[in-house]
Amino acid sequence: MSCSGATGGVTDVRTTDLVTPALVVDAAALEHNLATMAAALPGTRLRPHVKAHKTTALAARQLAAGHPGLTCATIREAEGLAAAGLAGDLLVANEVVDARRLGALAADGARITIAVDSDATVDAAADGGVREVLIDVNVGLPRCGCDPADAGALAARARRRGLGVRGVMGYEGHLMMEQPRDERSARTGAAMALLLEAHADVGGEIVSGGGTGTYDLNTWVTEIQAGSYVLMDTAYGALGLPFRAALAIEATVISVNRAGWAVADCGLKALGMDHGDPSIEGYDVWYCSDEHVTFSGEPLPRVGDRIRIRPAHVDPTVAYHERMHLVDDTTVVETWPVDLRGW
Amino acid sequence: MSCSGATGGVTDVRTTDLVTPALVVDAAALEHNLATMAAALPGTRLRPHVKAHKTTALAARQLAAGHPGLTCATIREAEGLAAAGLAGDLLVANEVVDARRLGALAADGARITIAVDSDATVDAAADGGVREVLIDVNVGLPRCGCDPADAGALAARARRRGLGVRGVMGYEGHLMMEQPRDERSARTGAAMALLLEAHADVGGEIVSGGGTGTYDLNTWVTEIQAGSYVLMDTAYGALGLPFRAALAIEATVISVNRAGWAVADCGLKALGMDHGDPSIEGYDVWYCSDEHVTFSGEPLPRVGDRIRIRPAHVDPTVAYHERMHLVDDTTVVETWPVDLRGW
Repeated sequence: MSCSGATGGVTDVRTTDLVTPALVVDAAALEHNLATMAAALPGTRLRPHVKAHKTTALAARQLAAGHPGLTCATIREAEGLAAAGLAGDLLVANEVVDARRLGALAADGARITIAVDSDATVDAAADGGVREVLIDVNVGLPRCGCDPADAGALAARARRRGLGVRGVMGYEGHLMMEQPRDERSARTGAAMALLLEAHADVGGEIVSGGGTGTYDLNTWVTEIQAGSYVLMDTAYGALGLPFRAALAIEATVISVNRAGWAVADCGLKALGMDHGDPSIEGYDVWYCSDEHVTFSGEPLPRVGDRIRIRPAHVDPTVAYHERMHLVDDTTVVETWPVDLRGW
Repeated sequence: MSCSGATGGVTDVRTTDLVTPALVVDAAALEHNLATMAAALPGTRLRPHVKAHKTTALAARQLAAGHPGLTCATIREAEGLAAAGLAGDLLVANEVVDARRLGALAADGARITIAVDSDATVDAAADGGVREVLIDVNVGLPRCGCDPADAGALAARARRRGLGVRGVMGYEGHLMMEQPRDERSARTGAAMALLLEAHADVGGEIVSGGGTGTYDLNTWVTEIQAGSYVLMDTAYGALGLPFRAALAIEATVISVNRAGWAVADCGLKALGMDHGDPSIEGYDVWYCSDEHVTFSGEPLPRVGDRIRIRPAHVDPTVAYHERMHLVDDTTVVETWPVDLRGW
């Protein structure tokens, strides 16, 4: 079993000993996903995004897979990684209006690069003591990122403020689930043309973008910011990618009604719901409420049975849980705190 | 200011000092909601449901408003309340397959009553050392609760196992948002007829049910299990109830695009999304992603501005946050840990 690692060995704990609902990660699927991605995008070609799992121990596994840099979405994520000594090259791929906490990490020796898309965020980076930035360029997703035509001026402002400009980033998030694949590829190319246009004005060695849905299609960037690949969810599962569903929630059946449904203890406070209901293999999910999922299917389980539930969206699911358990079927191999939650 | 209380006094902290996204609770609206509900359902007529806020300090305020018993959905909620000395009469209104942690609370002097709807959950209560139960009856919501015709037999089994049977509960959750009001009232009456039929077979002094949507319509129960009334959300707000929207999320505008949108730092990991997108007064919300909400409206805010966002569903929103801040406009009056999260 290759999954006993730096944070602990194989335990005698069974999944049936876990208080439910409990996040469980299939150890073999996780290994497969780490290895598959490292083969496709070795070293700096991938900058794994920790927002998908918010777990320092899993970030350490991604570094061990050969990727020297990590991507964060929040200051807390960067602080946690720095505290664990994993901040050799952290990109906070998000706009920050008060960068003082990140500046403190840089002063302590972390390498921190942040995304900037406005005069205000350039100034916040400089004022906060952050030393390096990427110019964040809007490539079609209505979210952060400057107009490509403004990127050069922002880079010049950043350099005037004494910041190192490492390059550009642009996230084609609106295309991650685009089907069919060749349409996703064509539209990604058009989006990345905007990013490269900006890069010509900005300079620097980094062109950062992409995600799990475009990890092998986006050949224009120097690094891909994928996060979901390592755990996967049912939404990404529909794309036919070579990554396996590693994450599930172990739940306990607490009620069975002879009118034809059963209830397990995994509800809205254990599941990100923005992509819709979770899935339970062999059953039809009816709906979720705060601490319950109601489902049907023959034969119904019995009260006390354990079942596994697959979330539709990994990231906001993981953010509800205090810990995740690496499992080999019903054996708990390791338990990792989900320690990068909050802000 | 009446909201400085047992857990602390008025501070010099401003909401602009808070790391965002941050849960903020309008102190005056909270007071209004507590007082309005205590006037409508004084004392034991209300058994406030802590699942809506998961905050011991707020549960203490509900007890101080004159309601001696509380409702929980999880074992962790009960443990936290017991540790704070607030377990004079706790109802865990949910089925529990392993009741040993609750039995330990009872052994320590807490009064713990749990819902049972099957032979297995009756036996779990007895085996776990819990002493009192309510027979949970299905009144139309496809979730937990036995068939009304089975309630008497379950009560008999519970008594044979040495459990005190305090009565029945039945949650008409499928009717909470029913409109118009007279239809909600009529259907609640039909649901409660099932519960009273079961109660006739079970006995005991408690008939527990209801919620914020039926708090004044459900006149058949001896106690209402409302939770949302104290903080409220946009979904319940649509019912025209006399409770005020107390909860919001303070967020920071991090990006403004001249094509006509702005982005704030409050996304899927700060918001329960099962009832849909949040609301921002004066703006149109476009969509949320992990750490962002994109919105439009004239005039757009500026980078660095603070805004307040109202969630569509309180309960799963609060469960993402480590603390909530009681505020008077932009002054932070108290800060409470959301300490009853997890399981």
